Amino acid sequence: MREINDRFDGARVLADLNALRAIGAYKTGVHKPTFSEPHLRSLGWLAERLPEAGLAAAIDGIGNVLGTSAKAGPKLLAGSHLESQNHAGWLDGPLGVIYALEAARVINTDPAINGAVEVASWCDEEGHFGSFLGSRSFVGTVTEADIDAARDRSSGRTMRQALSDAGFAGRPRLQAEPGRHIGYLEAHIEQGDALESSGLKIGVVTSIVGIWQYRIAFTGEQNHAGTTRMAVRKDAGLALARFCVAIDDSFPALCGPRTVWTTGRITLEPGAPSIIPGRAEMLFQIRDDNPEVIARLEQHLQHMAAEATAQGRCGVAVERIRTGAPAKMTSAFQDAIEAASAAGAEGKSVRMPSGAGHDAQILATIMPAAMLFVPSIGGISHHWTENTADADIITGAAVFVETCHRLLTQAVAAR
Amino acid sequence: MREINDRFDGARVLADLNALRAIGAYKTGVHKPTFSEPHLRSLGWLAERLPEAGLAAAIDGIGNVLGTSAKAGPKLLAGSHLESQNHAGWLDGPLGVIYALEAARVINTDPAINGAVEVASWCDEEGHFGSFLGSRSFVGTVTEADIDAARDRSSGRTMRQALSDAGFAGRPRLQAEPGRHIGYLEAHIEQGDALESSGLKIGVVTSIVGIWQYRIAFTGEQNHAGTTRMAVRKDAGLALARFCVAIDDSFPALCGPRTVWTTGRITLEPGAPSIIPGRAEMLFQIRDDNPEVIARLEQHLQHMAAEATAQGRCGVAVERIRTGAPAKMTSAFQDAIEAASAAGAEGKSVRMPSGAGHDAQILATIMPAAMLFVPSIGGISHHWTENTADADIITGAAVFVETCHRLLTQAVAAR
Repeated sequence: MREINDRFDGARVLADLNALRAIGAYKTGVHKPTFSEPHLRSLGWLAERLPEAGLAAAIDGIGNVLGTSAKAGPKLLAGSHLESQNHAGWLDGPLGVIYALEAARVINTDPAINGAVEVASWCDEEGHFGSFLGSRSFVGTVTEADIDAARDRSSGRTMRQALSDAGFAGRPRLQAEPGRHIGYLEAHIEQGDALESSGLKIGVVTSIVGIWQYRIAFTGEQNHAGTTRMAVRKDAGLALARFCVAIDDSFPALCGPRTVWTTGRITLEPGAPSIIPGRAEMLFQIRDDNPEVIARLEQHLQHMAAEATAQGRCGVAVERIRTGAPAKMTSAFQDAIEAASAAGAEGKSVRMPSGAGHDAQILATIMPAAMLFVPSIGGISHHWTENTADADIITGAAVFVETCHRLLTQAVAAR
Repeated sequence: MREINDRFDGARVLADLNALRAIGAYKTGVHKPTFSEPHLRSLGWLAERLPEAGLAAAIDGIGNVLGTSAKAGPKLLAGSHLESQNHAGWLDGPLGVIYALEAARVINTDPAINGAVEVASWCDEEGHFGSFLGSRSFVGTVTEADIDAARDRSSGRTMRQALSDAGFAGRPRLQAEPGRHIGYLEAHIEQGDALESSGLKIGVVTSIVGIWQYRIAFTGEQNHAGTTRMAVRKDAGLALARFCVAIDDSFPALCGPRTVWTTGRITLEPGAPSIIPGRAEMLFQIRDDNPEVIARLEQHLQHMAAEATAQGRCGVAVERIRTGAPAKMTSAFQDAIEAASAAGAEGKSVRMPSGAGHDAQILATIMPAAMLFVPSIGGISHHWTENTADADIITGAAVFVETCHRLLTQAVAAR
């Protein structure tokens, strides 16, 4: 191991991350929506760096950047994404890409190591145009019709137009070559405060949680807010408020240790100050990595709705509109990250699920996959103040490079 | 009294109301937004009818229709409005105009009666362009700049454009002639179920309640709905739901007998399914005719907000954005309606406040004013199914005509 840690360069990792931060800078973060000028410049920046790691660079027909190695031996795929949410943080995405680049620089140029790290930047992980379009294209589940239909949710620009504007139109879309990779490794900021609040440095991701989403609709009777007595009202908005509170009061006794639930949107109809809402709707989301927990909570939701309909003044209907698919991370890969943490992070690691979605869940559908997290200061995410201490960034990089080396060495040994 | 009741024609009242219903019909109701083609046609229809009642008709520069009498003696002003809410009922407005027309037909053409009823149709009572613009123009509180600024809340068409399209641009705006009228009388459907549920026929309006409106804002912390643990969330939407429920649980012990309160609009920011709302806002309204009740409830709201801020995870701020001005109806006029009800409605009347706003509250700022209600079937209002039994419409008209006669007779006697 000594030779790897000797040649790994933490200062180079920080310099690269800061170079990407300077492209599309916004306050201390960045603003790089998918296919924006700074995003495209970041893709070009990466493509120019890849040869330093002995990789041939390509940007494909959906904006994925892929660096491929001609070196003999096993290949590990590693990466993340370069676009950002609007006015968001500098590390969400670039961290995993630069860790992969650093691992490739250290490993691919070392003739003593059998095998190579190949680097990927997946396009549009942040979902400006769709859901994981880049990584899904690579695993083969995006059709040309899907691309025809995709539009930027902010500007309305079609994906076809954006690809044409970027000069990517007509290029082939690269797809995974069956059997080429021993697996996929991705690093990311935690986006929560679990590591920081426990003084830990590395999160060994056990699974990426599934997202279940529900439309909960309340039907009352629209009426005049001045002339309708309180005793005869059927106020759908009030029924919704009571349901929200009832969820929050009853879920803790039924949920799993890391279940989270969120009411992100509420609509009252017609939404006028002088009209009692006749209809109300909430978008409700539950995340967990255990479908049994979800089944229990969903049954409880339906029970609450039936009870509210029977005993209250309004009808309540719960409709599932998105079904989660938790992705288990490969356990041998988790072991490798943990072992590398023992060496490079004083053993300050913990196994934990990822509450956020990542490209690793898409890659996991076709190959072994794993993720490691570094701490987020204050747990802040999707905001320009998102940050990680420089020392923690370097520790994470060291563990990442070490993990890549271990996975390739194990693959050689297993052959 | 006998001669009045003999000459009053209930069938003519129903025929006129149905003639107006046929203009801009929508299902069993009407769709006549202010300055729409059917609304303008309805104004023209009324202007053509007024001479039958011995009135000179004018449509003024804001779309008010006014019928003035050259007859000697006291003048009583009576009316309501002809535009409707979108896809709404046939009687909300036209009932009061046709009652006024019928009273004028019976009284003005009778040389034995000293005095006359003058008929008004106030423009835009329903607030498509503003708040009581027609009646407020008549009492002198609408400036030219107010008209410059007014726009149709649905289409965005300016009031200036609408007045020009209607051919009313450049006409003078008629204003109340000081001392001309002994007062103002308006009939309206109740828009609630108080009369129907008690088997009563006439509501003698004691006051028009004031509307107090509040913006209640909740400040939490926007964060990722997947990575932020429940224990550390500051969910502004959840704080709002708890506040709504707390209002509904605590107001009944503090409110007056007819207080009503409504949360008509809720906004969560940013309103995305995967983001914990960092900010939330509700539009909250209280109506009552007693400012002391409102003061007590407002103090309670502020107390609740301070307590929630101190003990909960989010900040809560209550801001009053509209202050109500309850309008007392003239008590001698109430007595006249009650006496007329004893004669024309078997005494089936009750004194009650109006929960809805009406032009009478504007006229009440410059002259004695009163209102009478007829029952609404099922209390339905602002919906095309709004209705009143034909027999109740006729009873209401008889009481209205009788009240006009009594008020004029009293005025003569008092001179």
